[in-house]
Amino acid sequence: MSNHVYKIVRLAGSSPDGVEKAIENALSKASESLRNIRWFTVEETRGQVDDGKIAHYQVVLSVGFTLE
Amino acid sequence: MSNHVYKIVRLAGSSPDGVEKAIENALSKASESLRNIRWFTVEETRGQVDDGKIAHYQVVLSVGFTLE
Amino acid sequence: MSNHVYKIVRLAGSSPDGVEKAIENALSKASESLRNIRWFTVEETRGQVDDGKIAHYQVVLSVGFTLE
Amino acid sequence: MSNHVYKIVRLAGSSPDGVEKAIENALSKASESLRNIRWFTVEETRGQVDDGKIAHYQVVLSVGFTLE
Amino acid sequence: MSNHVYKIVRLAGSSPDGVEKAIENALSKASESLRNIRWFTVEETRGQVDDGKIAHYQVVLSVGFTLE
Amino acid sequence: MSNHVYKIVRLAGSSPDGVEKAIENALSKASESLRNIRWFTVEETRGQVDDGKIAHYQVVLSVGFTLE
Amino acid sequence: MSNHVYKIVRLAGSSPDGVEKAIENALSKASESLRNIRWFTVEETRGQVDDGKIAHYQVVLSVGFTLE
Amino acid sequence: MSNHVYKIVRLAGSSPDGVEKAIENALSKASESLRNIRWFTVEETRGQVDDGKIAHYQVVLSVGFTLE
Amino acid sequence: MSNHVYKIVRLAGSSPDGVEKAIENALSKASESLRNIRWFTVEETRGQVDDGKIAHYQVVLSVGFTLE
Amino acid sequence: MSNHVYKIVRLAGSSPDGVEKAIENALSKASESLRNIRWFTVEETRGQVDDGKIAHYQVVLSVGFTLE
Amino acid sequence: MSNHVYKIVRLAGSSPDGVEKAIENALSKASESLRNIRWFTVEETRGQVDDGKIAHYQVVLSVGFTLE
Amino acid sequence: MSNHVYKIVRLAGSSPDGVEKAIENALSKASESLRNIRWFTVEETRGQVDDGKIAHYQVVLSVGFTLE
Repeated sequence: MSNHVYKIVRLAGSSPDGVEKAIENALSKASESLRNIRWFTVEETRGQVDDGKIAHYQVVLSVGFTLE
Repeated sequence: MSNHVYKIVRLAGSSPDGVEKAIENALSKASESLRNIRWFTVEETRGQVDDGKIAHYQVVLSVGFTLE
Repeated sequence: MSNHVYKIVRLAGSSPDGVEKAIENALSKASESLRNIRWFTVEETRGQVDDGKIAHYQVVLSVGFTLE
Repeated sequence: MSNHVYKIVRLAGSSPDGVEKAIENALSKASESLRNIRWFTVEETRGQVDDGKIAHYQVVLSVGFTLE
Repeated sequence: MSNHVYKIVRLAGSSPDGVEKAIENALSKASESLRNIRWFTVEETRGQVDDGKIAHYQVVLSVGFTLE
Repeated sequence: MSNHVYKIVRLAGSSPDGVEKAIENALSKASESLRNIRWFTVEETRGQVDDGKIAHYQVVLSVGFTLE
Repeated sequence: MSNHVYKIVRLAGSSPDGVEKAIENALSKASESLRNIRWFTVEETRGQVDDGKIAHYQVVLSVGFTLE
Repeated sequence: MSNHVYKIVRLAGSSPDGVEKAIENALSKASESLRNIRWFTVEETRGQVDDGKIAHYQVVLSVGFTLE
Repeated sequence: MSNHVYKIVRLAGSSPDGVEKAIENALSKASESLRNIRWFTVEETRGQVDDGKIAHYQVVLSVGFTLE
Repeated sequence: MSNHVYKIVRLAGSSPDGVEKAIENALSKASESLRNIRWFTVEETRGQVDDGKIAHYQVVLSVGFTLE
Repeated sequence: MSNHVYKIVRLAGSSPDGVEKAIENALSKASESLRNIRWFTVEETRGQVDDGKIAHYQVVLSVGFTLE
Repeated sequence: MSNHVYKIVRLAGSSPDGVEKAIENALSKASESLRNIRWFTVEETRGQVDDGKIAHYQVVLSVGFTLE
């Protein structure tokens, strides 16, 4: 964070393929509408379980981007 | 949270008629501009007092909706 | 918070001139696009250091504004 | 909170008739000795159970009032 | 909590009819298998939204009962 | 925590004779039904007061034991 | 904190002139009725915004004083 | 907490003789002015060190008493 | 969480092969005795180190399952 | 904390003989390498259990000392 | 934080002249022994009061520096 | 934690290749100067984003090692 003003939004993403893939899915969707994403923080990590197996990993992210 | 990406926003609503009515007021106002609200979490519950009586109940909500 | 519904967003601002100037910079940038800002809360205070001196103070704010 | 100084005290109230009635009971008792109560925040919500049924709802409040 | 030892479990209950009904549903289900429930604490309050309306209120409780 | 899976339960114990005795009472009662308790964490320390004197010290513990 | 017993109260003060002035205003008002204030902790920093400008900085303090 | 309203105050006490003696000192001083103290919670435990040895144990308590 | 009542338990699992494998080990062991596991939350992530290398990743989970 | 700058380190100590002895063991070891320890705060209290009995009490401390 | 490893230490500084001067005093003292300080976070803000006036502002900082 | 005294330090590491690689990088750098590292806890997980893609994963760890 240098001389800019940033906005921070919260996003939840998911993936059957692991925590990092869930993070990437959330960021990929967010970058369709938000230019200039600069950082993220993982606020929560969780998942859904079906029949004793992990169906989806889920993450809640805080995502910061530059206000232009 | 299945396969979608959600955005989570924070809203504050109020009502003279109780906590649940304050929640409903916040969600009702939010649904004017946000389609696909899916869940809420109550982050804070408070109120204003006038003359020893509760003038408004107030709630701060986190509200999640699907990014399309 | 009387009878309105508010939205609360998170912003990060910075300034080489101190904490209060960093708050003002964030609010000034936010008011370009948000009408009706009503309050802020300082969530974090930090800074960057170069060569043993504070280069920028940085604040993370929650900012509440009326939904019209 | 405009130009005044406020004191904030913590109170616990209870009622067999629900959360909001427990809040009202605490505020009603407090207003016997505190003039100028202006707001409250619900810090905890709990209850006692007898024979599988809720005997009392209980709330812990922070209550702010103007120092004259 | 006098001279006994208590166990504390976490339960989540829900109801379309409000927060207090969701608490009661959780306690009612729990009392089928747990005798001697003595107190509860509300840890989280949330809900599901369908079509802009609250479909279910949901609560997460910590529930204490005497170990015999 | 080496290669095992542990379950963690919360217990509340008390004693008129001090904090450590309250911890021991909770663990002693728990070990009647739980084999293989391995560690505890003190989550809360409190007490009841009668006539200006401490009637019981009370502790809330998280207790971990090996799932066999 | 040496050999004494202290009481800790919470106060909220405000000032249009900055965070430190808001702290001073709260302590100045408190010292009218509390002798022997010894320390304070800043629990929250926030403010009110009018027309895109900070109308008041506001602080919530915990204030400790010696019980004589 | 049955049918009463309680007030909760914060106190800090100390003793060179251990944590429990610091709790007792705080409660003993408080009971000079507060009748009907009913419970306490230990919020913080700390101490001062002189010359590598503990000079005083110190506790911060929340203390609840019945409002008559 | 729709119309059911859930119980939430805490489990700690570990694996030398990474965080996700530690989660899976905890869920796999839990599903031997718990039917109807529906979700998990990662509360803590840690590990043991031997000779400068990670011997085990360890996770603490909250695990929710339907009470039938 | 008067006019000095302090450094704060975290230490974990243990003892089979109780919480206060675990605190003393951590401080005694620390004072071998740190001069001018001035205060400590107890961040966590826990223990290990063998065969249903407490094998070691364990504390995690924050310890402050003057930077000369 | 790009490709480096950082160490984060906690420091407490003070000044009679305000919060920012207390931060500067802590960083100035730290930079005598730590090269490559890169950022700080304000963890606590407090002060000492003598005779109703602020004698010292005090801050607790987390300070990050590059491990070379 | 058996009979030893441990020191706990905070480290931040990063890697373009994922969370676990960032943990390993921090531990690998730390073990150049710290013998006897015994455990770590992940305090924060975050990352930097360039052009809509994750440039670095970043972790903040608490790392415990035996004081000899």
